[in-house]
Amino acid sequence: MDSNGPEADVSGTGAGGRAKQGSLLSQYFPILEWGRTYNGTVLTNDLVAAVIVTIMLIPQSLAYALLAGLPPVVGLYASILPLVAYALFGTSRTLAVGPVAVVSLMTASAAGAVAAQDTALYLEAAITLAALSGIMLAVLGFLRMGFLANLLSHPVISGFITASGILIATSQLKHILGMTAGGDTWPEMLGGLASALGTVNPWTLAVGVPATLFLFWVRKGLKPSLIRLGLKPRAADIAAKVGPVVAVALTILMAIAFDLGDRGVNLVGAIPRGLPPFALPSTDLDLIGRLWVPALLISIIGFVESVSVAQTLAAKRRQRIAPNQELIGLGASNIASAFSGGYPVTGGFARSVVNFDAGAETPAAGAYTAVGIALASLFLTPLLFHLPVATLAATIIVAVLSLVDLDTPGQLWRYSKTDFAAHMVTIAVTLLAGVELGVISGVAVGLLLYLWRASRPHAAIVGRVPESEHFRNVDRHKVFTVPHVLSIRIDESLTYLNARWLEEYVLEEVADRSEVRHVILMCSAVNEIDASGLESLEAINHRLADAGIGLHLSEVKGPVMDRLNRTRFVEELNGKVFLSQNRAFRELAANGGPPEAPTADMARGMI
Amino acid sequence: MDSNGPEADVSGTGAGGRAKQGSLLSQYFPILEWGRTYNGTVLTNDLVAAVIVTIMLIPQSLAYALLAGLPPVVGLYASILPLVAYALFGTSRTLAVGPVAVVSLMTASAAGAVAAQDTALYLEAAITLAALSGIMLAVLGFLRMGFLANLLSHPVISGFITASGILIATSQLKHILGMTAGGDTWPEMLGGLASALGTVNPWTLAVGVPATLFLFWVRKGLKPSLIRLGLKPRAADIAAKVGPVVAVALTILMAIAFDLGDRGVNLVGAIPRGLPPFALPSTDLDLIGRLWVPALLISIIGFVESVSVAQTLAAKRRQRIAPNQELIGLGASNIASAFSGGYPVTGGFARSVVNFDAGAETPAAGAYTAVGIALASLFLTPLLFHLPVATLAATIIVAVLSLVDLDTPGQLWRYSKTDFAAHMVTIAVTLLAGVELGVISGVAVGLLLYLWRASRPHAAIVGRVPESEHFRNVDRHKVFTVPHVLSIRIDESLTYLNARWLEEYVLEEVADRSEVRHVILMCSAVNEIDASGLESLEAINHRLADAGIGLHLSEVKGPVMDRLNRTRFVEELNGKVFLSQNRAFRELAANGGPPEAPTADMARGMI
Repeated sequence: MDSNGPEADVSGTGAGGRAKQGSLLSQYFPILEWGRTYNGTVLTNDLVAAVIVTIMLIPQSLAYALLAGLPPVVGLYASILPLVAYALFGTSRTLAVGPVAVVSLMTASAAGAVAAQDTALYLEAAITLAALSGIMLAVLGFLRMGFLANLLSHPVISGFITASGILIATSQLKHILGMTAGGDTWPEMLGGLASALGTVNPWTLAVGVPATLFLFWVRKGLKPSLIRLGLKPRAADIAAKVGPVVAVALTILMAIAFDLGDRGVNLVGAIPRGLPPFALPSTDLDLIGRLWVPALLISIIGFVESVSVAQTLAAKRRQRIAPNQELIGLGASNIASAFSGGYPVTGGFARSVVNFDAGAETPAAGAYTAVGIALASLFLTPLLFHLPVATLAATIIVAVLSLVDLDTPGQLWRYSKTDFAAHMVTIAVTLLAGVELGVISGVAVGLLLYLWRASRPHAAIVGRVPESEHFRNVDRHKVFTVPHVLSIRIDESLTYLNARWLEEYVLEEVADRSEVRHVILMCSAVNEIDASGLESLEAINHRLADAGIGLHLSEVKGPVMDRLNRTRFVEELNGKVFLSQNRAFRELAANGGPPEAPTADMARGMI
Repeated sequence: MDSNGPEADVSGTGAGGRAKQGSLLSQYFPILEWGRTYNGTVLTNDLVAAVIVTIMLIPQSLAYALLAGLPPVVGLYASILPLVAYALFGTSRTLAVGPVAVVSLMTASAAGAVAAQDTALYLEAAITLAALSGIMLAVLGFLRMGFLANLLSHPVISGFITASGILIATSQLKHILGMTAGGDTWPEMLGGLASALGTVNPWTLAVGVPATLFLFWVRKGLKPSLIRLGLKPRAADIAAKVGPVVAVALTILMAIAFDLGDRGVNLVGAIPRGLPPFALPSTDLDLIGRLWVPALLISIIGFVESVSVAQTLAAKRRQRIAPNQELIGLGASNIASAFSGGYPVTGGFARSVVNFDAGAETPAAGAYTAVGIALASLFLTPLLFHLPVATLAATIIVAVLSLVDLDTPGQLWRYSKTDFAAHMVTIAVTLLAGVELGVISGVAVGLLLYLWRASRPHAAIVGRVPESEHFRNVDRHKVFTVPHVLSIRIDESLTYLNARWLEEYVLEEVADRSEVRHVILMCSAVNEIDASGLESLEAINHRLADAGIGLHLSEVKGPVMDRLNRTRFVEELNGKVFLSQNRAFRELAANGGPPEAPTADMARGMI
C-alpha cells in the first residue's frame, strides 16, 4: 500500500478525524478513534514494524541508558510501559517513544548534579525526573499550553542539538579509549580526556575503533551497496538501521573469543532478568526542588523533538496530530516510565522513521514493540553479558554525530543576523556551561531579540499617490502630502510591547513638523489594540490636544472598532474616525490648509 | 509665557534638538544642548520653580525615608546629589528626581529581607540597592535596552501601583494610631494592626487624625476655595501642593505646646545637621547576590514611572526625551545617591508636575532645588526635632491613596479580558506576597498571554470577490473559489512564535480538503519572515510535495523577497512565486481544475 498518496488517510485507515470532531472521550483517548477500524491487515503491518523497531531499540536502549549514567537495564525498562502508555494517549500513528540521546544527556546532567553515578540516589533522581517531567507535560496538555514550546525557535533548537551532539560524542570517547574521565562541559571533558591519555586500554581500543568505523560504514556505505545488490531503497534503509545489532553480536563474540573481560575491557556484565519493577519517584521536597527546573527543560526539549518528528511523519500521510494531546501522551509515557524504574523518554527521530518506513499504521505497533522489549529483557539479557561498553559508545557516537549540523550557522548568517546570534549563543553556552543553561540562554536571547524587534514595529509616513486613492510611504514613492496633515500608517497590531514606541514615534514626528495641525493614524494593518495600546492612543490624543493638534483614525478594522466603541476613547478623541484614509486626507487637507498644489507640495512632502 | 503653544519648543527655548542630531558628547551630556541658550529669563523661571519644589520636597523626603524604614535624614540626602546628577545627564527639562512612594516601599521590602530596621546593615542595604540600581540603569542605557521596560504593560503597572498604594497606606496606619506593628504583606499588616489595637496612643491619634483630614481637605477642597478667593487655577494648585508644609508647622507647634514627646507621641527627634556624608555601597558579594533581583525590579519600576511622567510633561511643550539617555540620567542619580548616603530615587509624578507648573524650563531647576535641600539640611533640621511622625504618615497616606485606582478593573474587564487578568493577578500577588513577586508575576502573566496570542495569529481562507481582483475571507464574503486551489491569507509576520502554528494550520486545512492540488499563501501582510518562519515554510513545502500538492506564494513584500532569494527556498519551492494573488489564482484555477463556473463553485467554496 502506497501510504504517500494524498487520499491515504481519507479513503484508507479513515480514522484520522480531527480530535475536536470526536467526543471529549476520544479526544483524550485517541485509541477510541483508530481502534474502531482495526483489522487483520493493519495488525500484520503493525507487527512487522514492531519486530524491526524492537531489534533496533535493544542496543539503542542500552546505549542511551549508559549515556544517562544509568545501568543498561534501565534503558530497557524505559522502552516497555512508556510505549504502551503512548499507544493509549498519543495522537501520532507512527511515533516511536523511548530513550533518546539529547534527553539522556540532560538526565545525566540533572541527576549528576544531585548525586554520584552508580548510587541509589542517582537512579532515584532519574526516576523522579521522569515523574516530574510526566506530570508537567500532562498538566501543560490539560491547560492547552503547548504553545510554550514556541519559545524554542528553530535556531535555538538546532544550536542546542548540535552542541548536545558534540557533548555526547565527546563524553563517549572515554569508553572507546577504555579510560576513566569525567566532566559536564566541553572544556572539562576535553581536559579529562587529555589528562587520562596515559591510561588508554589497547584492547578496548581494538574493539571500539573498528566498531565505530563499521557503524559509520553501515550508515553511509551499506545502503548504496545493498541497493546495488538489488534491494529496494526502503528495505536497504531499514537493513542499514539494524546495523548496530550486527556490531553488538560481533563484538560479543570477540569478547568471548579473546576473553576481553580479563584484559581490562569494560563489559556490560550481568543485567537483571525480568520485567520492569514497580518503582516510586521520590517525594523528598528538597530533591524535587532541585530537579524541577531540569525536569521542565527536559519536558520542553523532549516535546519539541517529539512533535517535530510526529508532524513530519503525519504530514506524509495527510494525517494530523493534536499537539496538546501529544503533551498528555508524552506525559503518560513519562509517568509510566517513572513507575516502572525507567527515566525520561520522548519520541525519537530515527526509530520513528524506521517504524514509519516499516509500515506501522497505528500506535498499536508501539505496544507490540513494548512486548518485544519485554521478551528481550526476560530472555535476552544473559546474552549481553559479554557486550563491550565500547560497542554501545560507538553506536551513540555514530548516531549523534548526525545531529551535528555545520551548515546552519552559515545559512543563518546569510538569512538573519539575529537568528544567527541566538544560534551561536545557544551552542556556546551549551558547550561551555552545560545543557540546562544552554536551553535557558537560548530562550532568553531569542525572547530578548524578539521583544526588541516587537518594540520597534513597522510604520510609515504616507502620502497620496497622485490621481489615485492609494497611500504609500513618502520615503519610497512620489506622493502628495500637505504640511498641516501628517498621515502615519501603522503596520502592526498595537500591543503593550510597542505601545511606548507608538507614543514616542508619533510625538517625535509631530515635534519635527511645526506646521502639523492634524495627525491621521491609518490602521489598515492593526488587527488588535490591547489595553496598553489603547492607553497610548489616549495619551497621544491628550498630548496632541494640549498642543492644539487633532488626532484622527482611518481604516480601523471592524472588530477593533467594536472594542474601541466600548471605551470613552472615541468620544474623547480630538478628531474623527474616518472609514477610508482617502476621505480623511481629502477632508483634513482642505480644512485650513493650503489648496492642493501637487508639484510644490510633493517636493515639500518628500522627507 | 504660555508654554503650551505648539511652537513653544521650535521658536522658544529652542534647544530641543533630537539627541541623534547633536554630537555624541551632547547625546550623553544633554546639558551641552540646553546650556548653550541659558539666559536671565530662564534662570529666574528655574529659580522660582526650585523654591516651590524645595518647600514641597522637605516633608516629602522625610516621609518617604520613614516609609523606606530609614532615618528621616536619608530622605534629605537622597534629594541633593541625585538632583545634580540628573541635571547633568537627564533629557527631561522638568522632571523632578528624588525619593518616591513606590520605590521607597520596594526599598523597605528588599532591605527588610536582609536586615532588621534601624541597624547599620539595613542602611548599608539601602545604599547598596541605590548603587546596584544605578549601575543597572546606566548599563541598560548604554546598551540601549530601554525597550525592556515594555515588559511592564499598562494594566500590570497600574495594578502594581494600586496595590502598592494600598500596602503603603496600610503600613502607615500604625504611625497614625501610635502603635508598633509590622508585616510585609497586606494580610500580615492587617493582622498586626488588629492585634496591636489595645496599644493605641490617644495623643498620637489626636495629631494624626486631624492632620490626615486637613491634608485630605487641602488636596480636595483647598484648590476650589482658593480659586473662589480669586487665585489663578495654577497658583491655587501649587498652593495646595504646599499644604503639607503647613501641617508640618502646625503639628510641630502642637508638639511643643502640649509636650507631646513626653506623652508617648513618636517625634522625628534629632536629625544630624550637615551635608550628605560620603558613603560607600557594600562590596559583599553575598549581600549583592541577595539584592540584585530587587535592585533590578526597583530600576525597571522606577524607570517606567519616571519616563511616563517625563513624556507627559515633554509632550505638553512639544519637547522630547530620549528614553535610553533617561536610563543613564536615572542611573547617575542613583549612583550619586549611593555615594552620598541616600537610597534609590526616581522621577516623581507630583513634584515634577509642580516643577512644570511653577515654570521650570531646564534641568538646572533641579540643581537649584538640590541647593535648597542642602541649605535645609544645614540649617532647618533642628526645627524638625518636634515633628510628630504621625504627620509624616498622614502626608504619605494622603499622597498614596490617589495612586489607588478603582476604575481601571471595570474598564479593563469591558475592554480586554486578558488585560483584566494581568491587572488582577498583579494586584492580588502584590497584596498577598509582596512587591517583588507582584512585579514578577505581572510581567510573567502579561508575557504568557502575549505569547499565547502571538502563537495563534490571524489568517483566513480567501476567495475572489466576483468581477474584481480582490480576495476576501470566505467566511465573511460571497467569493469565488475552486476546490483544487486553496488560498490562505496570512495576516502577521512569520516569526518563531507562530511558525509552528503556520505548519499546523496549513497542513490541517489541506488535510480537510482532499481535492486540493495547489496551496497559495498570500503574504501581503507579512512584514518579516525569521529563520524559524522560513524553516516552517520549507517544511510545509516538503510535506505538501510529499502529498503531491504545489505550494505557491503571492504578494510577497520586496524586503521579504530579497531575503528569501538569499536562501534555497525559492528554487526548492514546489510551485511559483506570483506578484499578485489574482494572477496566481487565475493561473492555478485554470491549470488542471474545472473551468470557472462561479455559481456552482461559489457554493462549494463557502465553508
